[in-house]
Amino acid sequence: MPSFTPLAAEAAGKIASYAILDDPNHLAVEIGQAEHRIGLVNSWQIQQGSRVLEIGCGQGTCTAVLAEAVGPEGHVDAVDPGPPDYGAPVTLAQAQAHLSAGPVGDRITWYHAEPVQFLAENPGTKWDFVVLAHCIWYFDGPDTLGEMLAALRGRAAGLLVAEYALTARERAAVPHVMAAVARAALEAHNKASEANIRCLLGPLSIKDAAARGGWALDKEEVHVPGVALLDGSWEAGTVKSKWFLEEIDKYITDVTLKTTLLSAREAVVGAVGLLNGEKVRTMDVWVSRFV
Amino acid sequence: MPSFTPLAAEAAGKIASYAILDDPNHLAVEIGQAEHRIGLVNSWQIQQGSRVLEIGCGQGTCTAVLAEAVGPEGHVDAVDPGPPDYGAPVTLAQAQAHLSAGPVGDRITWYHAEPVQFLAENPGTKWDFVVLAHCIWYFDGPDTLGEMLAALRGRAAGLLVAEYALTARERAAVPHVMAAVARAALEAHNKASEANIRCLLGPLSIKDAAARGGWALDKEEVHVPGVALLDGSWEAGTVKSKWFLEEIDKYITDVTLKTTLLSAREAVVGAVGLLNGEKVRTMDVWVSRFV
Repeated sequence: MPSFTPLAAEAAGKIASYAILDDPNHLAVEIGQAEHRIGLVNSWQIQQGSRVLEIGCGQGTCTAVLAEAVGPEGHVDAVDPGPPDYGAPVTLAQAQAHLSAGPVGDRITWYHAEPVQFLAENPGTKWDFVVLAHCIWYFDGPDTLGEMLAALRGRAAGLLVAEYALTARERAAVPHVMAAVARAALEAHNKASEANIRCLLGPLSIKDAAARGGWALDKEEVHVPGVALLDGSWEAGTVKSKWFLEEIDKYITDVTLKTTLLSAREAVVGAVGLLNGEKVRTMDVWVSRFV
Repeated sequence: MPSFTPLAAEAAGKIASYAILDDPNHLAVEIGQAEHRIGLVNSWQIQQGSRVLEIGCGQGTCTAVLAEAVGPEGHVDAVDPGPPDYGAPVTLAQAQAHLSAGPVGDRITWYHAEPVQFLAENPGTKWDFVVLAHCIWYFDGPDTLGEMLAALRGRAAGLLVAEYALTARERAAVPHVMAAVARAALEAHNKASEANIRCLLGPLSIKDAAARGGWALDKEEVHVPGVALLDGSWEAGTVKSKWFLEEIDKYITDVTLKTTLLSAREAVVGAVGLLNGEKVRTMDVWVSRFV
């Protein structure tokens, strides 16, 4: 396998252009997303020519970067259990089809499947790397994650994980941490949640699940996302919104718990207010490799 | 009534010496507590000669400052429903008795009573001010608070409240906000809680309860406690401790909720770690007056 050559940060513009760009502001958003994921791929040292299994690929934001990293000799199998019509304004199916029709489309195969079932149905297939990039908070809990990490054991040389670290080296990212906790505390009481935080698994819980699945931690580091990664701003926005209040009313009956969630939201609103108009930043990201 | 003369910050040393000082480090702790409460009393403009009803006096930390503020012509009725043997190493009863035997003891009357019942049993008594200083998080919820604030209506000219603001103007106080949310999210699932956060009522919830009780907001401001007020450090410490983990195991059965609480704790541990050894500070305090 060829030695590792990092992707240049400048590749973000090109990779971002592979996505469906439905309005003039969207390119900048996609560039921020691609820049962040170029940082992940370089930290993981994914070589040209690699065969990668991506779990929880969603609309393919990381898949596009992985496809660029593996080059024309490599391949990405991208698995997601989400319904093809999930997502707005662009659905999962639309976004994936658009990437497939683009410059790196022939390096990607999409699978609409539960990961554990997908692995069971393809028993002979192995990969160089399995990637889980910002997908773990969609899992319904540590048991589901643990089951999947155990099923991945023996199927790839390296397990590569990126998830929010629950810390904020940048002061402006503090509201993101608080919003994630508030959102997760609400969603823990909504078993049918389709939110993007269904169970808040921090690095400690992920390492615990990986260890139970037979994986040994090989490397971990913390990335501080740039201002162009808007996830923190979006998440704080959802908690500040009136819909969060409506969901508290809908899903929570206990008055003490309801008050606690209102106060968790008040802490987010207060933390955003203290930024004096500066945009909320995205919290630190924990980037790890297991073997 | 005489015009208002602020208490000098230097009075903190004298007032602190009224408390039981059971070890050499305790005086500094009490001075920090007294300094903070002198700030509250001055913000509220409690005049010499005032008759004050203090709800949730506990061991009398604020009571001593109030007794100093009202002077020899004033009086403080201090009510707390807590059991006389609550608190360690010094109990409520011991701390109160010690203050009674001290220089301002004759300005204080202690009542071991539920506040609403106390008001009902003393129908003719009125006060210049009712004070709730850092006692509201001990309430079991907004309904109990609302009932009490309604019962206080017509019994005093001014309602004076101090409670944590759920914001951190000082970066080092961020862990305190996160710890309060984590602790409250746990205690919301422990109906028999004797923790010092039983229901996390933020300023918005308190203002809502006051409005329902017939009180109009007259003034509100935010105080940033000094480094000598250790409450934030204590609270973050309790969430970091192994007992928090044991309580999660004891009170929480749902695995998603358990994971969320572990991650809320991980956020506190991470936030403390980012202070690089600097002591956790106490979050902002919301100080308000209602008429």
